[in-house]
Amino acid sequence: MKEQVNTNKFRSELGMAIRRHRHKLNLSQEDFADMAGIHRTYVSSIELGKVDVGIGVVYKIAGALNLPLSSLLKETEAHLKD
Amino acid sequence: MKEQVNTNKFRSELGMAIRRHRHKLNLSQEDFADMAGIHRTYVSSIELGKVDVGIGVVYKIAGALNLPLSSLLKETEAHLKD
Repeated sequence: MKEQVNTNKFRSELGMAIRRHRHKLNLSQEDFADMAGIHRTYVSSIELGKVDVGIGVVYKIAGALNLPLSSLLKETEAHLKD
Repeated sequence: MKEQVNTNKFRSELGMAIRRHRHKLNLSQEDFADMAGIHRTYVSSIELGKVDVGIGVVYKIAGALNLPLSSLLKETEAHLKD
């Protein structure tokens, strides 16, 4: 099922983009979770692309990273083309 | 709770952006749901901003609208500033 594979790859790339930006800010998953208002274990699952995280949560994450959500997605799309 | 309000407004603007693009393509919610591989009633809830739709689902929706997800979100962000 091609579509399913693509969705998984997309989630995985998004998780990696989130992790890269969190590292740039020198934040632990725990500190970042507090800033974004979500649970630490959820940050881990999101960064690993394991969950289909709600768009509202991704919006809060982008805010905590001080990035427009569209920029985070644009970066994710660029990596998908690799 | 400011953050909650913003998330709701974001979801609502995203839903309206999806609806605008669906209308541009002259698609019914039912036809669009088939194209995106989701349930018709779910399309309605998403367009009304009632659900925190998973990012993987929004990715499939953008694909069905033939738009990069980052473009759909950029448009949503532009409307949020109004």
